[in-house]
Amino acid sequence: MDKKSIGVGLMGLGVIGGQVAKVLLERAEMLAERVGSPLVLRRIKVLEQDLTRSQAMVMEHQLFTTDEDEFFATPGMDIVIEVIGGEKPALSYQKRALSAGKHVVTANKEVIAKYGLELMALARQNNVSLHYEAAAGGGTPLIAPFQRDLVANKINGIYAIINGTTNYILTSMSREGMDFASALSQAQKMGYAEADPKNDIEGIDAAYKLAILASLAFQSQIRPDDIYCEGISKLSSRDFRYAKELGFAIKLLAIAKQYDASIEVRVHPVFIPQDYFLAKVDGVYNAVLVEGDLIGKVTFIGKGAGALPTSSAVVADVVSTAREIVSGVGCVVAWEPKAGKKIKPMSEIETRFYIRMNIADSAGVLAQIARVLGDNDISIASAIQKESDELSQTAEIVIMTHPAREKAVQQALGELERLDVVKEINNSIRVEE
Amino acid sequence: MDKKSIGVGLMGLGVIGGQVAKVLLERAEMLAERVGSPLVLRRIKVLEQDLTRSQAMVMEHQLFTTDEDEFFATPGMDIVIEVIGGEKPALSYQKRALSAGKHVVTANKEVIAKYGLELMALARQNNVSLHYEAAAGGGTPLIAPFQRDLVANKINGIYAIINGTTNYILTSMSREGMDFASALSQAQKMGYAEADPKNDIEGIDAAYKLAILASLAFQSQIRPDDIYCEGISKLSSRDFRYAKELGFAIKLLAIAKQYDASIEVRVHPVFIPQDYFLAKVDGVYNAVLVEGDLIGKVTFIGKGAGALPTSSAVVADVVSTAREIVSGVGCVVAWEPKAGKKIKPMSEIETRFYIRMNIADSAGVLAQIARVLGDNDISIASAIQKESDELSQTAEIVIMTHPAREKAVQQALGELERLDVVKEINNSIRVEE
Repeated sequence: MDKKSIGVGLMGLGVIGGQVAKVLLERAEMLAERVGSPLVLRRIKVLEQDLTRSQAMVMEHQLFTTDEDEFFATPGMDIVIEVIGGEKPALSYQKRALSAGKHVVTANKEVIAKYGLELMALARQNNVSLHYEAAAGGGTPLIAPFQRDLVANKINGIYAIINGTTNYILTSMSREGMDFASALSQAQKMGYAEADPKNDIEGIDAAYKLAILASLAFQSQIRPDDIYCEGISKLSSRDFRYAKELGFAIKLLAIAKQYDASIEVRVHPVFIPQDYFLAKVDGVYNAVLVEGDLIGKVTFIGKGAGALPTSSAVVADVVSTAREIVSGVGCVVAWEPKAGKKIKPMSEIETRFYIRMNIADSAGVLAQIARVLGDNDISIASAIQKESDELSQTAEIVIMTHPAREKAVQQALGELERLDVVKEINNSIRVEE
Repeated sequence: MDKKSIGVGLMGLGVIGGQVAKVLLERAEMLAERVGSPLVLRRIKVLEQDLTRSQAMVMEHQLFTTDEDEFFATPGMDIVIEVIGGEKPALSYQKRALSAGKHVVTANKEVIAKYGLELMALARQNNVSLHYEAAAGGGTPLIAPFQRDLVANKINGIYAIINGTTNYILTSMSREGMDFASALSQAQKMGYAEADPKNDIEGIDAAYKLAILASLAFQSQIRPDDIYCEGISKLSSRDFRYAKELGFAIKLLAIAKQYDASIEVRVHPVFIPQDYFLAKVDGVYNAVLVEGDLIGKVTFIGKGAGALPTSSAVVADVVSTAREIVSGVGCVVAWEPKAGKKIKPMSEIETRFYIRMNIADSAGVLAQIARVLGDNDISIASAIQKESDELSQTAEIVIMTHPAREKAVQQALGELERLDVVKEINNSIRVEE
């Protein structure tokens, strides 16, 4: 075994970068044992403002540089860790590192989801590795299982609660009967939601992670743009109340399914039966259920974000990369896409639906609604009148449909909206069973 | 990349061996893509009676041999898969394979738990790998995460439901109010318990698996004999009823905790709070909760047994081994024990206790019981009289203690048993919170 040290460069000294540096420095001995050679942190690329962080204050000043060229000129740097996040300048830093023959470890879901294939090709050309375990599910091992433990399986489906912010909000709405705005504001106060929460609450962050997981699981290139994406802001406390009465929980689920000729990928709120495991995953926890033809259902549950879990995954990747270097293994990349399968258009997806609407409280109204649904080949499993308002002579009804095509449901909802007797369609939520 | 094929030999063609052979043969193309070279099944060591299995009938006859020497003489056999199970002759087969410079993949928990360290040393001497992902948790990735994904963590604890048979029985007792004997007999009818269920119901199987996981997690040698082991046969339907009333579930838990200077390892029934994830894992499912100092709590849930999940793990190990061969990596073994930590004696463990007993239904009895507990430094959290029998003038009481030392509790239980007013101590179960 080669006993020379492995040099590491770190790009980014934010909350995650600071924690990664701390683990590399404080656990140097333990990590060296795991690798078989010492891991030496040689340089950290920082922004001017990072230098005043408490984490930076306790480290040797000559470790830092604010200059990209100076960073890349550091001698003996075998592995570059990119934990800046976002597309710019992270993508160009990763490309530069790979092109310079440096192995890359990253936690950057956006860059991997959008440019993973391109980066892997670049890694292959330069005979270096690209690892990104921390890009999905924080510290919970999700990438490695697809690369290693599940390789004998045909993966049929992935069902994932993969955004902690939205799961925290939905848990508050469900447990405390809060409305969306209050739950969001509480999550922001707790530091679980950002000031601009769009990426989380619109499902964009979940779609990045699903793109990564589905690409690996199905050995296909799934782009974030391929994924149908619907957020949680339309949900009301009433939906949670009715869901409970009907035996369901509401979760923002990232779903990927593989068929013989096509792949289905979508992120949206769903009704799932209360007794499902995923229904019981609350707060900032993430959970990913993978269905393989040999293994059946396997579920991974853990905290999906935060500096500590993320540093756990990043440093594990650094150790794996270092072991590969010590063993003389060259390029290790996650996947090579095979002949791409068609992405199933959302309009062809078939699910049951929960529909909540306000209608005129008079005879014959339900018959009219049933006729519109029937004309669109949608059959009703149950229709329950929830509340009526004598003053306005309206009533709220909840309809659960049998499985129906998305296209037909959207068509029917449009027609229902145009009926005089329908005052408002408050919400329509897909059911996943 | 070397394109020569990788030769595989299989020892054992039982339920698991048959399924492993099927996957290797039917998915040859998919596996070759993953490895970068074809995997060729060159020989199968069988027993005479295996040859009449339907699985054997569809395979080429010249693949089989009943002769050990003939098996090992097969040319071009790089990897030997041992899926015979049990100690004899599996251990000697593994040793022979490693000594002959062949990489070994096994699902054999007993051999790895008892002789893992010796086998790993042998693998190291011969510069070959020893993989055993299927030895704990069936297809659920448990070994690899400790070897790879969690290496940056200090592991504080493992809490595992790791025997499907007992979890199935406990689920029946909890849900249907069955007594132990009926639940066991039902599990046997369903094929979830063996005719001789001792290894499962006495916790021995769980102890094997815990020895493997704890050795990896703590980088120490934990032997099955180091583990305190208590089975589920003493549990009654009443215990489940009272547990529920008190807000707990009853599970057979395998527990390992690491302290600065010592390690705690034990398998026994426990009360766990109903809202814990592990409390909700029912039927034949396994679940392993790992607590690391960076990652927090991560839980893995999946089917812990069965031919399909086990074949998933075995074949994944074969693919990993084959990739190592293709990359020119030599010996890959799971762990090297460091200076061993002391195993904490069971008598020093501190937990809360649930104690159910029949006492004389007369004044002053509870005071006598409280005095015995108090004299042993055990304080009572609650004491509830459950039922009284007027005819025999006895009453059933349930006592929940505050945390107390095992030694003191056992001492107190002995003293209580000798009191005239105590008719019977029906059960005492530890609480894990």
